[in-house]
Amino acid sequence: MTKVKDIGEQGLLERLQRFCPPEMIGDDAAVLVTEPEQSLVVTTDMLVDGVHFSHVTTSPSDVGWRAAAANLSDLAAMGASPLGITVGLGLPEDLGVSWVESLYQGMTECLQQYNTPIVGGDVVRSPITTVSITAFGQVHPQKIIRRSAAQVGDAIVVTGVHGASHAGLKLLLNPELGEKLTSAEKAALIKAHQRPQPRLDVLSFLWQSLESNSPLPVAGMDSSDGLADAVLQICRASGVGAILESSQIPLPVAFSHWLTPEQALEYALYGGEDFELVLCLPQVSANLLIHLLDRSAAIVGTITSHPQVILHHQNEKIPDQVLSLSQGFQHFGK
Amino acid sequence: MTKVKDIGEQGLLERLQRFCPPEMIGDDAAVLVTEPEQSLVVTTDMLVDGVHFSHVTTSPSDVGWRAAAANLSDLAAMGASPLGITVGLGLPEDLGVSWVESLYQGMTECLQQYNTPIVGGDVVRSPITTVSITAFGQVHPQKIIRRSAAQVGDAIVVTGVHGASHAGLKLLLNPELGEKLTSAEKAALIKAHQRPQPRLDVLSFLWQSLESNSPLPVAGMDSSDGLADAVLQICRASGVGAILESSQIPLPVAFSHWLTPEQALEYALYGGEDFELVLCLPQVSANLLIHLLDRSAAIVGTITSHPQVILHHQNEKIPDQVLSLSQGFQHFGK
Repeated sequence: MTKVKDIGEQGLLERLQRFCPPEMIGDDAAVLVTEPEQSLVVTTDMLVDGVHFSHVTTSPSDVGWRAAAANLSDLAAMGASPLGITVGLGLPEDLGVSWVESLYQGMTECLQQYNTPIVGGDVVRSPITTVSITAFGQVHPQKIIRRSAAQVGDAIVVTGVHGASHAGLKLLLNPELGEKLTSAEKAALIKAHQRPQPRLDVLSFLWQSLESNSPLPVAGMDSSDGLADAVLQICRASGVGAILESSQIPLPVAFSHWLTPEQALEYALYGGEDFELVLCLPQVSANLLIHLLDRSAAIVGTITSHPQVILHHQNEKIPDQVLSLSQGFQHFGK
Repeated sequence: MTKVKDIGEQGLLERLQRFCPPEMIGDDAAVLVTEPEQSLVVTTDMLVDGVHFSHVTTSPSDVGWRAAAANLSDLAAMGASPLGITVGLGLPEDLGVSWVESLYQGMTECLQQYNTPIVGGDVVRSPITTVSITAFGQVHPQKIIRRSAAQVGDAIVVTGVHGASHAGLKLLLNPELGEKLTSAEKAALIKAHQRPQPRLDVLSFLWQSLESNSPLPVAGMDSSDGLADAVLQICRASGVGAILESSQIPLPVAFSHWLTPEQALEYALYGGEDFELVLCLPQVSANLLIHLLDRSAAIVGTITSHPQVILHHQNEKIPDQVLSLSQGFQHFGK
């Protein structure tokens, strides 16, 4: 196995430059053309081996995909289109060069869907594998999605399903949990964990749904830290509350015959890493957005003036629950 | 001592947000306004404890200053004005919170000189202190400085003096080396190492010197990896050569009574981390630039068609030397 120390940082940089557009290479910095009248949006994430990923559950290409997806998701959450990413790598000398190339392969596979280049990077020696990604995008100033813009009466729309990524992780760690699942169901949940899709595709439908119907701005964020966290963060930043209807939260189909309703809801609200969008917009626009997204989104609740996030259970004899950032999931009082 | 683990990543993020403009905080990403008709310039660096800095020779505020300066220098080397930086931090749980705050203090002190904000970041747990900075700037597309634009006959201009940062590091590691130096001389050399200045100030003078005299583009880069490396990189990227006159390379005044001419030249050519600019431009513009910079810059050589970088020694009976990227400094054949 060729190790990082065998080819050195310079040798590795040369191999990794194959993943970058040639015009980005060779100067002190990369140059990107932005459109006039667009604002620049910037986000950054650091991932550390043993803390954010593990050689056991995640292949290097999946580490790369997930890292790219998480950053693109942050751009989507702001309403921004991606322009490029930079990648800083801290690498132990004994790490295999193929690990690093697979990491870049995974990043590139995710980025190529959105024509997003890797425009720069740095490779340094480190005792621990560390990946630092900064993504930049652009957005028209009037289309910036902010957490703080939720209005009382807004519908709370979530894209996709929630809980799938967490279920996928559970299945990777404990394969025996998947006995009741078909191979296709297992594969879909594991894929949701290993290859999450940033929801940049939602933005054009969002602008369409708002056209002439609603004043901007839209409130929103992504659900990388869980659906409950996203709603709570939006409500805190906007100085409002919300009521969520548990039965309206879209779940993976497999959950109905695999998990108890309580488990399913816990995965969906607190599992995290689904990288879906949570958006607050007027009801009429919300309905139009769901129609445009071919019903792969749902209204899960409403923004209220009362500064609490209440989880209501329409179909079950369970009292309302108050969600909070600190307290995590409260099990049903059964 | 309050440790990172005592207040957690969230608590630390809140403390560090004091160093950021309030409007940048609270969303998935930061939003920056760019000017129309400017291109975006992006550069990134990763620094690892024990590899790029040491708790022994460098205070956390100097680590922060140097990290910010290195990134701003990369922007200056492209001709770009800074817009902001993001900071990713990997931190051991036992690290003192005051270390991290001093790091940010040092970064901020450097950045404030150029009204450059810290616009985003990430704080994660890591076994080893890691600092990852990405800087963004903007430049008019016609003013981009590239390594590949050197023309035969161009004057090679260097700003400031070279060798000071390396001398400062030597003095920090071996204080006894400084016996022949005055306190002021020692302090100046050490400051050059601990608090290097990115040469963003040179850019407006550069544009002035080129006005109506010369066609753009200008070739150049910074001397972060040494003056010899900068000239060699520019020549390689431009497919040209250069002749450098050793007696014309500006050195710190103290070198003349402290180092042998050979040592002085070695520090200047190969020491690195001076973060000065090396620019190739027509002779008339070069002379004007040096005048505008009040002679704190010098013409050290000329771009030639012969694809070698030759070091000539006008005042000494030493044969010409051919510089190369791989071979490092060749000691005089005495």
